Amino acid sequence: MPRISRRTVLKGAGAAGTAASIAAPAVAQSSPTLKWRLATSWPKSLDTLFGGAERFADYVADATDNKFRIECFPAGAIQGVPGLQVTEAVSAGTVELCHTAPYYMAGTDPTFALACAVPFGLNGRMQSAWWREGGGEELINAFYEKHNIFGLLAGNTMAQMGGWYRREIATADDLKGLRMRIGGFAGSVMSKLGVIPQQLAGGEILPAFEKGTIDAAEWVGPYDDEKLGLHKAAKYYYYPGWWEGGAMLHIQVNRAKWSDLPRTYQAILGAAATEAGEFIVGRYDSQNPQALKRLVAAGTQLRPFSEATMDVCFRAAHELYAEISGKNEDFKKIWDAVRAFRLDQYLWLQLADSTYDNYMIVQQRKHTL
Amino acid sequence: MPRISRRTVLKGAGAAGTAASIAAPAVAQSSPTLKWRLATSWPKSLDTLFGGAERFADYVADATDNKFRIECFPAGAIQGVPGLQVTEAVSAGTVELCHTAPYYMAGTDPTFALACAVPFGLNGRMQSAWWREGGGEELINAFYEKHNIFGLLAGNTMAQMGGWYRREIATADDLKGLRMRIGGFAGSVMSKLGVIPQQLAGGEILPAFEKGTIDAAEWVGPYDDEKLGLHKAAKYYYYPGWWEGGAMLHIQVNRAKWSDLPRTYQAILGAAATEAGEFIVGRYDSQNPQALKRLVAAGTQLRPFSEATMDVCFRAAHELYAEISGKNEDFKKIWDAVRAFRLDQYLWLQLADSTYDNYMIVQQRKHTL
Repeated sequence: MPRISRRTVLKGAGAAGTAASIAAPAVAQSSPTLKWRLATSWPKSLDTLFGGAERFADYVADATDNKFRIECFPAGAIQGVPGLQVTEAVSAGTVELCHTAPYYMAGTDPTFALACAVPFGLNGRMQSAWWREGGGEELINAFYEKHNIFGLLAGNTMAQMGGWYRREIATADDLKGLRMRIGGFAGSVMSKLGVIPQQLAGGEILPAFEKGTIDAAEWVGPYDDEKLGLHKAAKYYYYPGWWEGGAMLHIQVNRAKWSDLPRTYQAILGAAATEAGEFIVGRYDSQNPQALKRLVAAGTQLRPFSEATMDVCFRAAHELYAEISGKNEDFKKIWDAVRAFRLDQYLWLQLADSTYDNYMIVQQRKHTL
Repeated sequence: MPRISRRTVLKGAGAAGTAASIAAPAVAQSSPTLKWRLATSWPKSLDTLFGGAERFADYVADATDNKFRIECFPAGAIQGVPGLQVTEAVSAGTVELCHTAPYYMAGTDPTFALACAVPFGLNGRMQSAWWREGGGEELINAFYEKHNIFGLLAGNTMAQMGGWYRREIATADDLKGLRMRIGGFAGSVMSKLGVIPQQLAGGEILPAFEKGTIDAAEWVGPYDDEKLGLHKAAKYYYYPGWWEGGAMLHIQVNRAKWSDLPRTYQAILGAAATEAGEFIVGRYDSQNPQALKRLVAAGTQLRPFSEATMDVCFRAAHELYAEISGKNEDFKKIWDAVRAFRLDQYLWLQLADSTYDNYMIVQQRKHTL
């Protein structure tokens, strides 16, 4: 019950209690007291991702005067809800909502990858524009409806690094036979290149390296990867992560629970997701340079993928998109939309933004900044 | 008065009215009914910028069940509050809040430019990270306090174009004697290069071209510039706008009005600014490519500034920063912080993000996207 009714009942006598009861429905409609559980795909140690979920919950509490409280759980903390299956738990109503990278569900339907990241797709900034002003939100939520969830954009990793390798990757041939931890849908493209992909939750990667069950692994970027200790297992750190020019993170809400919320709470959850998302991007950007310097000081060797290697991967990715589009209508519809948006975005990005940044990068290398 | 009290009073008899009165202060504290006026620096035709202010107001209304209503005014619509002086109106309490580009106040104190854009400063994404997770918000709001305002980050133009010119700018010498409309602080750098800068509000630029009082003008980018009709006045469209690798837009609130708000409303205004900001960036990014194609089809000639021209401008800008830092402590303190952040950011950006985007730009040019 909202505080006013409770206080009225507590402080007033009989008649006041009656009046409060008469008034209650309208108030309950606009600001009910709720307590929800949010499952995440993240270990608690990642203050970027798990911290983002906590920001989301904090903002909802602040904006509702603590009437709407959301408790965040790290991956695996809720029995029967593994970190990579939080979407299914929301769909089934086991928890009300989750914070995840939607492509963990790509095994169920590859269309989920388009809600998150596909190789050579939109970068993080373009994904935000596509979601908000390019029709992306409508397309993805129409697809999500089939899975009984409603999605809110809640962060982005921005372009990721290309992962940790025990030996150098000079050409695409060097990928053959590699047992690699790689997230979601990108594994399907990697398979075409001879990689043996494995999807592991963040906390399971270093142990797999140590047990010798993987030869390479990608997670996110310097700050998160350092926290997971991946530099202890492999020396060569490649870039860019061509499979994640950006990776959208979503708050996914059980559809019925979402529909039952008053409009005020829907607005507040939406803005909370945006706030959390901007926190995540800002935290990554402010912390990644520091982590990068620490990693290099500790012996990490930075390596770019060669353009020839990227070209092989680019072709493999687009072959896969054509194959899936031939048999999955949802995927085709959304991929066609993403592809058209991508073409326009890279037309525009190369003018003001890219020339500005490239000029400044030259200055950074010339030590004039 | 909040709705519950009013309904209680209306529906209940005497005793209920008394009970509601007893309860009222606590409610008034958490969700009072408010109506504020928001002055903007934008003409109503700009659905990016003025539209962003409207999104801000809409979200506040949605999240408070219409208890907190904010009316947005285009530049000049409130008597005595010109579009470029909205900050002063907020400071004086003439209006409660405004939406503006803070560098319009750089004539009062150049430190205001650091809250918005300085030549060769942070790009838009870096500004967001600096504001949220790099200490920027604290530094700027400590400075704003001297001017009786509190700032919320509410959008960014991202990297801007370098403006419209009637003849080509092959070298920095071609800038000499140019009467150019250029916003805020950048005019001071342009002065060092021989430009005669003029600060005009958006709606005044095309008339100035037509009257022959300016030879060149910059505003934002393709979508906004097309709306203002700048392509009708000049043929050459340069990039990048090295004076605005990003331009932060702020909601500025009168300090006393901000302090008087309940915590819930402060949280809601903060998230509303973030929501409005992401709308603005998304709208620019989704619309700029379309506008760019229309402009080029209509005869606009795209031209990059040469690296040599940029180098002359880069040196002039940094000479100015050193001069101002010698006599303005606020400027020095904040510029030193921005500069250190910039150095780290361009170290990091050149790895995953820049190599990814540059690879994709090559694909755009090769028609493989």
